Amino acid sequence: MPEEARKPEERETLPTAKRVALLNRHDRIFHVILAQQFDRETIDTLCKLAEMLRNIAETRQGLQFLKTLLSHKRAMLYFIQPSTRTFLSFAAACQILGIAYDEVRNPSVSSEVKGETEDDTVRVLSQYFNLIVMRHPKEGFAEEMAHALDALNMSIPIINGGSGQDQHPTQALLDIYTLHRAFGRVAIERGNLDFSTNRFAGKTIAFVGDLKRGRTVRSLAYLLCRYPGVRMIFIAPPELQISEDILEYLGRNEVEYAFADDVGAVIHECDAIYMTRLQDEYDVAGESKKIDFDRFHISADMTPRFKPDLAIMHPLPRRKEIDRRLDTDPRAQYFSQVHNGMWMRAAAIAYAFHMDGAIIDHYQTHFTY
Amino acid sequence: MPEEARKPEERETLPTAKRVALLNRHDRIFHVILAQQFDRETIDTLCKLAEMLRNIAETRQGLQFLKTLLSHKRAMLYFIQPSTRTFLSFAAACQILGIAYDEVRNPSVSSEVKGETEDDTVRVLSQYFNLIVMRHPKEGFAEEMAHALDALNMSIPIINGGSGQDQHPTQALLDIYTLHRAFGRVAIERGNLDFSTNRFAGKTIAFVGDLKRGRTVRSLAYLLCRYPGVRMIFIAPPELQISEDILEYLGRNEVEYAFADDVGAVIHECDAIYMTRLQDEYDVAGESKKIDFDRFHISADMTPRFKPDLAIMHPLPRRKEIDRRLDTDPRAQYFSQVHNGMWMRAAAIAYAFHMDGAIIDHYQTHFTY
Amino acid sequence: MPEEARKPEERETLPTAKRVALLNRHDRIFHVILAQQFDRETIDTLCKLAEMLRNIAETRQGLQFLKTLLSHKRAMLYFIQPSTRTFLSFAAACQILGIAYDEVRNPSVSSEVKGETEDDTVRVLSQYFNLIVMRHPKEGFAEEMAHALDALNMSIPIINGGSGQDQHPTQALLDIYTLHRAFGRVAIERGNLDFSTNRFAGKTIAFVGDLKRGRTVRSLAYLLCRYPGVRMIFIAPPELQISEDILEYLGRNEVEYAFADDVGAVIHECDAIYMTRLQDEYDVAGESKKIDFDRFHISADMTPRFKPDLAIMHPLPRRKEIDRRLDTDPRAQYFSQVHNGMWMRAAAIAYAFHMDGAIIDHYQTHFTY
Repeated sequence: MPEEARKPEERETLPTAKRVALLNRHDRIFHVILAQQFDRETIDTLCKLAEMLRNIAETRQGLQFLKTLLSHKRAMLYFIQPSTRTFLSFAAACQILGIAYDEVRNPSVSSEVKGETEDDTVRVLSQYFNLIVMRHPKEGFAEEMAHALDALNMSIPIINGGSGQDQHPTQALLDIYTLHRAFGRVAIERGNLDFSTNRFAGKTIAFVGDLKRGRTVRSLAYLLCRYPGVRMIFIAPPELQISEDILEYLGRNEVEYAFADDVGAVIHECDAIYMTRLQDEYDVAGESKKIDFDRFHISADMTPRFKPDLAIMHPLPRRKEIDRRLDTDPRAQYFSQVHNGMWMRAAAIAYAFHMDGAIIDHYQTHFTY
Repeated sequence: MPEEARKPEERETLPTAKRVALLNRHDRIFHVILAQQFDRETIDTLCKLAEMLRNIAETRQGLQFLKTLLSHKRAMLYFIQPSTRTFLSFAAACQILGIAYDEVRNPSVSSEVKGETEDDTVRVLSQYFNLIVMRHPKEGFAEEMAHALDALNMSIPIINGGSGQDQHPTQALLDIYTLHRAFGRVAIERGNLDFSTNRFAGKTIAFVGDLKRGRTVRSLAYLLCRYPGVRMIFIAPPELQISEDILEYLGRNEVEYAFADDVGAVIHECDAIYMTRLQDEYDVAGESKKIDFDRFHISADMTPRFKPDLAIMHPLPRRKEIDRRLDTDPRAQYFSQVHNGMWMRAAAIAYAFHMDGAIIDHYQTHFTY
Repeated sequence: MPEEARKPEERETLPTAKRVALLNRHDRIFHVILAQQFDRETIDTLCKLAEMLRNIAETRQGLQFLKTLLSHKRAMLYFIQPSTRTFLSFAAACQILGIAYDEVRNPSVSSEVKGETEDDTVRVLSQYFNLIVMRHPKEGFAEEMAHALDALNMSIPIINGGSGQDQHPTQALLDIYTLHRAFGRVAIERGNLDFSTNRFAGKTIAFVGDLKRGRTVRSLAYLLCRYPGVRMIFIAPPELQISEDILEYLGRNEVEYAFADDVGAVIHECDAIYMTRLQDEYDVAGESKKIDFDRFHISADMTPRFKPDLAIMHPLPRRKEIDRRLDTDPRAQYFSQVHNGMWMRAAAIAYAFHMDGAIIDHYQTHFTY
């Protein structure tokens, strides 16, 4: 029995390594489902493609070239959880690559009200479109659908645009890309597109806020394990600290980490600080209300203690975690993250459709140093 | 007084033949409104175009050619009734042909809340777009608008994407196309694109479920009358049996039909079985709850009694009418119907814009046997 | 301190002339925010571009040329107030120019529910898109955002698609364009594209209905002041008469105006009559219900008193202000306004991206007389 035909229940008992192998690009289909599926080489390639895409897009001719790349493809953005920024990031990525797309966002206008199972819905969508980007409240749903469509020999890549409290792999990829651009700014601006350098060895990266329920932190932590020598600090109220499964994963990958409960106490050590908002939409009984968030907040008054090249990050939307006076500090990277995300998503889509070669060729022909 | 200028009230008293004549492509505009408007020649042409489109779309070059066909047109998808699959089918068809489109789906965000009549809304839309695809709860609304715009000399084709409990002509066209592909699979796969063959003579086609309120069955029954020698069985609980007006139409067209009240009793006779779901959104007092649906259900246990080439169809969304174990049976056609629908809708749109010649030319140049 | 960096509070105290200067196309960005910002030369140019675009669009080749003009741009239609016609007018304009676009329309699916400020939302959008068209209930919001993005050196034009009860500048531009086409029909049909002629000198234009709360009337009154010799009549119930600030503006610009409280009494003097609907969505305590609207209504029975070339206008949606029997009168311009609006918006977008030269060149090459 081929692995593709196994039922979801069997697959959940597979070790992660095997589940990941099923997702990675082999002779047929490349899905983007879990942060853990990405090895260093794939991450490096995606960062390089993202950087090439943004360079090519500097000219009208370049943008018009990019629009021909996947003008023969059609994509479905299946966003069942509310989302503006991730949705539009993928939409803009599709527009850049010339992919026609449409959306399902509000399940109340859909056939689900007529009693259809969501399996059937996704199978129907796979009859119309060549790519499905999926944001879904149910953990594991994107993975399950990827395996189900593979089993039916539908050659359709699935990209996970955020699944429950679990994973947000393209966010993690754009965060890695942003860190590369922050730590290697000078080299990259000079046109050095070698993203295989480990720019994270010896760096301290702090995560602040609601680490328990924020899927972006979980996904980024997985990816950072690919860079030996990185150190992490988790700064959160005890009830919202990072989950045990992530710490185990770090332990297995021999990543050094520490805990703190006050940003101010450790900010001077940080090369990057990753702020997050309270995920109170997941509250069961208003537990977020009881937290004193003063210690999980970054203020402009702390700037004297900042390292000169500190990268201040946030997946957005933000509330009050970040002092707005920091918005004009060149170390603030949170709006750059948004922009980088569009290029990273375009890179992932292009890669899923085997367009990496065409992009590299075009870049090398037009950008010589 | 030219026929185009007659008021809707006058037109309702016209015999169907005359109403239909007004809709068919003459020197100006081809609307798709009623299943009855289609003669055999037009059905044959649309099936042939659909098959050519899907063949051309096999290559990137072919897809890029298709995208230029109607890249100078703009379409409005005016879907006032909830719909995902039909909406997206038309959307994908537009994408394939390079038509830019936008939508009105939720009348609550529209100007209707400001007290506008829907006539005015459609006239406004006709100022922006070259095609209107319309799903509407009101029977006859698409037809009324087609005549109204004709009377104003707005050269805009209207395509009915489903009107109340009445008509769903593009669904009927895709169903005919699916039946052709099921009954003539070998010939079509070999590249025989002659859809003028009557593949339905001597075939028995059963319709199962809520035949009274399902507009897809009504529309398909009309079209099947164009194929002499077809036989129909209507399998439904008495209170949901097919309406008298359809039976009269069949009688006038000398179509043989029978009734049954149990799928199991007649399945061995069927060449195609067309399952439908309960349309309980049209229930007045929960009448659907009282029906025992066991006899209107198709099970994998019946396979020994299936004809080898039985076509199992369903317009979807489905509930429990079809045993999910049948999904992997090659005789299951319901997901193929979805895919066929996209090509049929693209064919109908291309035909409305007189692109049939360009498609046939391209096909004949690139596919020689 | 450069003007661009001033805070919004400071800018509100600037005289209008200076605010306007900040918005007009200089070396960097052209925003469309306020009717007052348009001088005669810019209005003339936009009308000429709109007329050229519609002429070029007469052929498939012309439409395909237009679609390449801005195919390297991406637009965001940020429509927080309900709108169908203005939204779709901009959408169609984008489609004509080949601009990929997406939308934010329903703030309840957006990140605002996660507690984000709208400033952040717009800054995020500016990371993905090259143009933002904005309809917003808050007066001044589009202007504020235009200045905020300028201060951040984001080179993104903002186009105001309607702000609260205040401004609707593209509606005013399309109204001017419609008046030009009504008063100069013969010349324009012959291919005379000189829109610098003052066709409004000596003309009487009446505004009827809810003049206090209708932003279209406010915006159009500003633009008409650019045409010396125009005369205005404001016909409204006393409690809905035109605001004092508009009258002051007219006074400063030496425009002659009068008041009336009955359409029938002055219709014989009018060269154009601009009907409006009751803006009762802004009612505080149902005040609209008390008005006798009979005197603010135009009937087919008045036609004997119409001037032969009267232009009957309405920004739509309409209710009962206009007798439907007038719809087929060639003097009815309200559906032409809709169509003209699409071309005017395309003209404004093309102008913001400096494509006026390319359009004029194409026109002059292909249309010679």
